[in-house]
Amino acid sequence: MKGVDIQAVKRADTQIILSNTYHLMLRPGGKYIEERGGLQKFTGWNGPMLTDSGGFQVFSLGSGDYISELKNRYHAGRSGGQGGIAKVTEEGVICKSYYDGAMFHLTPEYSLELQCQLGADLVVVFDECTPFSNEYNFTKQSTDLCHRWAQRSLTAFQEQRKSHQGLYGIIHGGIFPELRKESALFNNDLDFFGQAVGGSLGQTQMQMEEVVATAMAHASKDRPTHLLGVGKISDIFMGIKYGIDTFDCVHPTRIARHGCALVKRIFNNHATREHLNLKNTVHATNDRPLEDDCGCQTCQNHSRAYLHYLITARENIVINLLTVHNVHFMNRLMQDIRQALQDHTVGDFELMYL
Amino acid sequence: MKGVDIQAVKRADTQIILSNTYHLMLRPGGKYIEERGGLQKFTGWNGPMLTDSGGFQVFSLGSGDYISELKNRYHAGRSGGQGGIAKVTEEGVICKSYYDGAMFHLTPEYSLELQCQLGADLVVVFDECTPFSNEYNFTKQSTDLCHRWAQRSLTAFQEQRKSHQGLYGIIHGGIFPELRKESALFNNDLDFFGQAVGGSLGQTQMQMEEVVATAMAHASKDRPTHLLGVGKISDIFMGIKYGIDTFDCVHPTRIARHGCALVKRIFNNHATREHLNLKNTVHATNDRPLEDDCGCQTCQNHSRAYLHYLITARENIVINLLTVHNVHFMNRLMQDIRQALQDHTVGDFELMYL
Repeated sequence: MKGVDIQAVKRADTQIILSNTYHLMLRPGGKYIEERGGLQKFTGWNGPMLTDSGGFQVFSLGSGDYISELKNRYHAGRSGGQGGIAKVTEEGVICKSYYDGAMFHLTPEYSLELQCQLGADLVVVFDECTPFSNEYNFTKQSTDLCHRWAQRSLTAFQEQRKSHQGLYGIIHGGIFPELRKESALFNNDLDFFGQAVGGSLGQTQMQMEEVVATAMAHASKDRPTHLLGVGKISDIFMGIKYGIDTFDCVHPTRIARHGCALVKRIFNNHATREHLNLKNTVHATNDRPLEDDCGCQTCQNHSRAYLHYLITARENIVINLLTVHNVHFMNRLMQDIRQALQDHTVGDFELMYL
Repeated sequence: MKGVDIQAVKRADTQIILSNTYHLMLRPGGKYIEERGGLQKFTGWNGPMLTDSGGFQVFSLGSGDYISELKNRYHAGRSGGQGGIAKVTEEGVICKSYYDGAMFHLTPEYSLELQCQLGADLVVVFDECTPFSNEYNFTKQSTDLCHRWAQRSLTAFQEQRKSHQGLYGIIHGGIFPELRKESALFNNDLDFFGQAVGGSLGQTQMQMEEVVATAMAHASKDRPTHLLGVGKISDIFMGIKYGIDTFDCVHPTRIARHGCALVKRIFNNHATREHLNLKNTVHATNDRPLEDDCGCQTCQNHSRAYLHYLITARENIVINLLTVHNVHFMNRLMQDIRQALQDHTVGDFELMYL
């Protein structure tokens, strides 16, 4: 995880971490990590781990267009047609390494071979990760391709899996309820350990909620369910309403690198943000921690004033301190939510956080 | 401390840390830290702490010439005569902030006021920190000035000290044995809690040993004694032979930022260096830790191969992991030396380390 060592991740009560197959494929490579005993051992984490399929990064990093499309959420068509580097065929994706410029071919079979080499407990089918689109035919074609790739991923997984590994399918279908339903039912018929809601979740928070609601209405109730790439506090409260179990997102560690800390509403006087910006001089004379009730190493030992000072003095260790807090914050949020689901008090917790 | 959070410093069995008065004077200021409850509280360290006088940095950073002089150890005369920014008068030093360009006047009285505000347990007299010189008259003048400033520092300290604070004098005299003796005797006559060997220690390791030997031959035996700015393993074994108790140096944390780890001779196949360079591809397939017998968090959890990978992937957390090891290494070195002094086995330990 960026900006934090693995022992600090453990001390923050983390239960599972996700690693990116695409980055690891380029450097240091799946075979290299397999020779080192697998990702859990190589990283020193030695605990539950998930790998993604490489699909998101190959589409977002392989073509300069894609990342801006995904981030800005406007439709710019298929990558092949945009002159991007990524070229999509029935077989898979041809892409160029951001590391050394080498061309490579990522297929469902290769993604699963890589993920089996990496050795994470939970692995994911290879999928096409298209930007937002409001064109039905475009989304239908992409969903169908994802289904064919999912079937190939499952076959490859069954041939190569390590005994502790389980495979997640991905429910696609963009913003179209009928496609989401079709994709959920398709996934239900295949022998997956778990399922994820993936692909484009729409342009607005309301569209995302509609997508999640539709997918979850038809998804298997017997499988753990993951919402891919989502991690704002408000999005998590939305997701758990529909039965989402797990989430992944770079948001908590990324905003730490920009000097920001996640805090509950009661510790935040900013009306529309879920975080504090410690660069702000308002924190320079605040001798309280980020959150008065937080048990993380940062809140137990440091004031907002000290964190503000470290930023002004350009001491990079502040990234570590803020990352520790943000990871601890997310883990505690999920602990609170699990407890609240048992106690039927989710609404109370949501008011405290948002 | 650069590259490591204060809890990791504690976990590495650190007993005391040094803070730089000059940097803290410029930003965030002595009064600001006093208002925050002092340095120990502000940093979350809450343990024994030493501040320097600001003398070294005002001379090394105030003038572009000075740092290169000190590092390259050639003589280029007094700063005032070199067109540098620092101007030395009987009163003190006029210098320019590297932070905002403001001019300021650092005097013995102001240095002690700052150090009392910062609130460290051990504080140091303000001194002129000249580069290496083989001119007797130059060194004599500087030593005499340091003595007058030491007397003024002591007076200022006695007026402002917090009850837990103790003051160190500094033995000057450059490479001239008679001046080192004179300075040691001068310090012995003043009411200092401790003493440091400071100023230019010569151009070679042999000159440094002569300087330390002469100073220690005449220094008080009843005071804790510090060797300023020294921290190579070989220099430490030299220093303890003559009765030096404590050392300070950026070396262990600085080389960590350059991808290097301190290791004992038995774990190092490089004949002339005290450290490994983890950038080197020889480490890419080495699944052993930096040192097989090291109890630090990094060695307990990570292989050389993983550290090498983090460097190639430009993951800055590797700085943290290497800093943790290097700080732990230095603390263990000093523990081993203290035990060896009791057991009269220092020679054996030196062979293991060097």
